[in-house]
Amino acid sequence: MKPVKIGICGLGTVGSGTVNVLHRNSRVINARAGCDIVIGQVACRRDDVDCDISGLNVTRDIFEVATNPDIDILIELIGGIDVARELILKAIEHGKHVVTANKALIAEHGNEIFAAANEKGVTVAFEAAVAGGIPIIKAIREGLSANKIEWLAGIINGTGNFILTEMRDKGRGFSEVLEEAQELGYAEADPTFDVEGIDAAHKLVILASIAFGIPLQFDKVFTEGISRIAPQDVQYAQELGYRIKHLGIAQKGPKGIELRVHPTLIPQKRLIANVDGVMNAVLVKGDAVGPTLYYGAGAGAEPTASAVLADIVDVARTLTADPEHRVPYLGFQQEQLRSELEIVPIEEVETAYYLRMSALDKPGVLSQVAQILSDSGISIEALIQKEAADEEEIVPLILLTNRAVEKQLVEAIIKIESLSSITGPITRIRVEPLK
Amino acid sequence: MKPVKIGICGLGTVGSGTVNVLHRNSRVINARAGCDIVIGQVACRRDDVDCDISGLNVTRDIFEVATNPDIDILIELIGGIDVARELILKAIEHGKHVVTANKALIAEHGNEIFAAANEKGVTVAFEAAVAGGIPIIKAIREGLSANKIEWLAGIINGTGNFILTEMRDKGRGFSEVLEEAQELGYAEADPTFDVEGIDAAHKLVILASIAFGIPLQFDKVFTEGISRIAPQDVQYAQELGYRIKHLGIAQKGPKGIELRVHPTLIPQKRLIANVDGVMNAVLVKGDAVGPTLYYGAGAGAEPTASAVLADIVDVARTLTADPEHRVPYLGFQQEQLRSELEIVPIEEVETAYYLRMSALDKPGVLSQVAQILSDSGISIEALIQKEAADEEEIVPLILLTNRAVEKQLVEAIIKIESLSSITGPITRIRVEPLK
Repeated sequence: MKPVKIGICGLGTVGSGTVNVLHRNSRVINARAGCDIVIGQVACRRDDVDCDISGLNVTRDIFEVATNPDIDILIELIGGIDVARELILKAIEHGKHVVTANKALIAEHGNEIFAAANEKGVTVAFEAAVAGGIPIIKAIREGLSANKIEWLAGIINGTGNFILTEMRDKGRGFSEVLEEAQELGYAEADPTFDVEGIDAAHKLVILASIAFGIPLQFDKVFTEGISRIAPQDVQYAQELGYRIKHLGIAQKGPKGIELRVHPTLIPQKRLIANVDGVMNAVLVKGDAVGPTLYYGAGAGAEPTASAVLADIVDVARTLTADPEHRVPYLGFQQEQLRSELEIVPIEEVETAYYLRMSALDKPGVLSQVAQILSDSGISIEALIQKEAADEEEIVPLILLTNRAVEKQLVEAIIKIESLSSITGPITRIRVEPLK
Repeated sequence: MKPVKIGICGLGTVGSGTVNVLHRNSRVINARAGCDIVIGQVACRRDDVDCDISGLNVTRDIFEVATNPDIDILIELIGGIDVARELILKAIEHGKHVVTANKALIAEHGNEIFAAANEKGVTVAFEAAVAGGIPIIKAIREGLSANKIEWLAGIINGTGNFILTEMRDKGRGFSEVLEEAQELGYAEADPTFDVEGIDAAHKLVILASIAFGIPLQFDKVFTEGISRIAPQDVQYAQELGYRIKHLGIAQKGPKGIELRVHPTLIPQKRLIANVDGVMNAVLVKGDAVGPTLYYGAGAGAEPTASAVLADIVDVARTLTADPEHRVPYLGFQQEQLRSELEIVPIEEVETAYYLRMSALDKPGVLSQVAQILSDSGISIEALIQKEAADEEEIVPLILLTNRAVEKQLVEAIIKIESLSSITGPITRIRVEPLK
């Protein structure tokens, strides 16, 4: 299939991230899409951009992209409302598909934009508008398409979640933590949009429309911010077994649909209560699937670019009904599967280890064990050595090692097991940091 | 668009669940799909099925479905390998698209099946094969399509996770907990498949192929079960700040791809370390998006049916390139958006409440407060009453109420605030159980 040409409007944080990720990962992206995704034009008003635009067709006029007959998909990353709305409507008018990360625009003018797009038979995709890199729109819209959605609840503003997490972890007050967040670049100079829940309301109204099949109704969202949460409330909530999170909640009930953003006590043991810092998560309850949760980075250049580019691949797929252009069985086009990549034998795999052994309760055992590990280049990261129970001569010895290649560790274990001061086999379990 | 006709082979747990969910939710499913999804035929060998098949075209011969010219999509839910493989290849040969929940079949014969399907230009979808209702295949394959996947780690066997969770929570041994799991129906009479990691290996190999774009290589997965985990290992892991989970890990490194299923110590503070009981979760690290996590039910009739039906909707979309047949902007077809659904005013919303007030430190205050709440039909679920500090006459009083309608609570709060024994305004924060 011929290349799909995109026109990127706006090279701020997200725009630059999109160019960077597309350049870096073009091989895998094209192998998944089944066609080449090519930047046909970029439009930006600034010279200092955080990406390489050499060799690209650059214009200062974003509207040029909307009317450029070469462009298949316009990528709106300028932000704001009025100009972005005009730009997108112009692109639609010219038969272009649109990808946008603009939550405010979709929440406030989505109905108009979708009506225009529907009329023209073009796609408007906006995965990046909600929860950054988490494919939450795709999950609800496609992954849970068999479900009546009963409710959803999301931590969909990273700034607010960072502030509440810091208040809890450090016992500090709202204003103090807000200042810190501003210094770290997690909060704007005017934080109203984030801390009063307006940003979360934009995202909530989009999720709710997709969940329940209703038009976007931003003006009907109830919004309450976190600025009045006192440190003692955070503390008392903990004592009661809860955590305070700033949630966007959409729920269908007998009276209709509830749309509300407010601080909420939720039981500590819920997974979503443990989503901390600037991370986002959305909990969705479907009648068939039950509760499902989606977690990841809710903002940032590359996480947002990840969503923008996934939308571009999706839109590219809609351009034909060619079988080669569907989502491939294994994500990559059949002829692009890489059978030359080796699967590593377990002996060559490197992980940290938990080791538990039974040792005679006499001096020098630990140093013998440590010596054998050290000779194999393995060091001890943590240790539990229990006192012998009365009369008992055998004590458990528990070690966490640093990362080591399996076969070296196995050799060391055989030597340790042969020590006269060690009885019985050694239990070993791999350790992964998962970060 | 004309109806899409599906033929369901197998009416066991998942097959019956699929029929039930499709019957119950046909309105939302069709409104999302943009066409009617119709059961053209069902094939099963048993009479006692857990769904209503009255009025349906029922056959005892599954192969009849594979050759029935009326059927667009064959749904393979018979399980097992040899007959299922033959059935799917026959359906493909007859130009039918296929949806399956069969992880063993895809893991062991997916390469052959996909090659045949590719040849014929038909789709094979298998979201239900991994992690039940969690749309994890869609997430990696489409949601993260812009990323180089660095690694993924999943709790992808509910039986094993239930056993490890019980061992931790109750300090019991593997065999004892396994028996309990068998009584509860969470483990098979022969539990080998689950506890030795074979089931997880099937799922892992599918996820890894999608993540890295490699052919399915089930025979190269390293597999280690959980039967040798001792209660003291669970205990020592906790002391070291870790939890033991049975993970499937796929990781791309300089030596190649690691594919391994084994018990693993992971830091307690990771979200995935807190996924308990029979629930599943997959943590995926992409180079652009960073870590993302997907959580939900990994098995069961309706969660699995949710994934099967989502695949059916997806496949139905591939049948034409009509704009009306794409994924709709808001998930539901434009003309199906329900503008008549009311958004509930916040005054009518019912939630539980956290209330914090400052009370004079004298007898009878609590009973006055409780009386006012009780008069409004609100009861107290939990209470913190702090001692007055020396010399201080004001004490904090913290209450958790049961669920109450906002306007009733607000009225009660006004009355409480007017009490002479209560000073200053009352802080209130909503409480949600999120279950």
